[in-house]
Amino acid sequence: MKFCSHCAHPVDWRVPAGDTLPRHVCANCDTVHYVNPKLVVGAIVEYNERVLLCRRAIEPRLGFWTLPAGFMENGESTAEGAARETLEEACAHIEVSELFTLIDVPHINQVHLIFRARLIGSEYAAGDESLEVALVAEHEIPWDELAFRTNSLALRHYFDDRRAGRFGFHRCTLGPAPQPVDG
Amino acid sequence: MKFCSHCAHPVDWRVPAGDTLPRHVCANCDTVHYVNPKLVVGAIVEYNERVLLCRRAIEPRLGFWTLPAGFMENGESTAEGAARETLEEACAHIEVSELFTLIDVPHINQVHLIFRARLIGSEYAAGDESLEVALVAEHEIPWDELAFRTNSLALRHYFDDRRAGRFGFHRCTLGPAPQPVDG
Repeated sequence: MKFCSHCAHPVDWRVPAGDTLPRHVCANCDTVHYVNPKLVVGAIVEYNERVLLCRRAIEPRLGFWTLPAGFMENGESTAEGAARETLEEACAHIEVSELFTLIDVPHINQVHLIFRARLIGSEYAAGDESLEVALVAEHEIPWDELAFRTNSLALRHYFDDRRAGRFGFHRCTLGPAPQPVDG
Repeated sequence: MKFCSHCAHPVDWRVPAGDTLPRHVCANCDTVHYVNPKLVVGAIVEYNERVLLCRRAIEPRLGFWTLPAGFMENGESTAEGAARETLEEACAHIEVSELFTLIDVPHINQVHLIFRARLIGSEYAAGDESLEVALVAEHEIPWDELAFRTNSLALRHYFDDRRAGRFGFHRCTLGPAPQPVDG
């Protein structure tokens, strides 16, 4: 952010009066421009012991597999966001049930909420942001070709819980990915 | 938003290519300015069968009572945000335990996450944003003087669960507050 979105004046980076953190503050109209973490909402969509995965047609991680998920929009609930993303990416209607995982990803200012959900009917297809969509059994999960660590974390909890016969709620934090160490 | 925060050119309000919703788009540098829901994080802080409430020194709802809670900041986890808000508003150190409620408030583009937490030590005091802070028993809760409906919803679930001897996780949606009807 370089300019005030209200008056087009250049912004300063400073701690506003009564605040504790630096913000973009307009030196002309005094508007404080807050930037807050974003919510990513998605679903583990169940159908006959299989789950719905989408192969990404867009960056980042083009060509890799993901649970249907994306940035929550204004005016919707978290569950409605998960259903909308599933419709957009997998052309699938779902019934959202329990919140399954909350994953904090503080180094990129995101919070991921993954719900359990049930496919309504049996239709699905690649949406604009997907190359292909598939219903996948546990032994078919492409663990090395998952797009994001949030996906593998949620799916591991899911299959562990299913094997244990009881689905819980899982909250965890992901730090920066380990970097390869040069020999 | 009237001007692009990158280049100070006036923004348009239109659906960007490949998108489904209207956004503020810069006609000069093509930057799309997304606006997403905000997370409010807070805590029900327990101490000897009492919970910590703060009387607000700031608008909105100045003079009304609230759970310690506020907008999540970049670079922190949801639980860290709840602890930071409690330290700022009630000068109290807490140990955050389970996520207790997720309350969707889509008409104001907010998601409220309230954790259960335990007061560490027994010290607390009014922070800059509070007129006073108190540890309150169930029969002392000022139900008619609570600042926000999210507070009363979380507290009602809390006392119901405590009476039942088992704390669950509660997800709910709040619509706009009912307006008084003219006679």
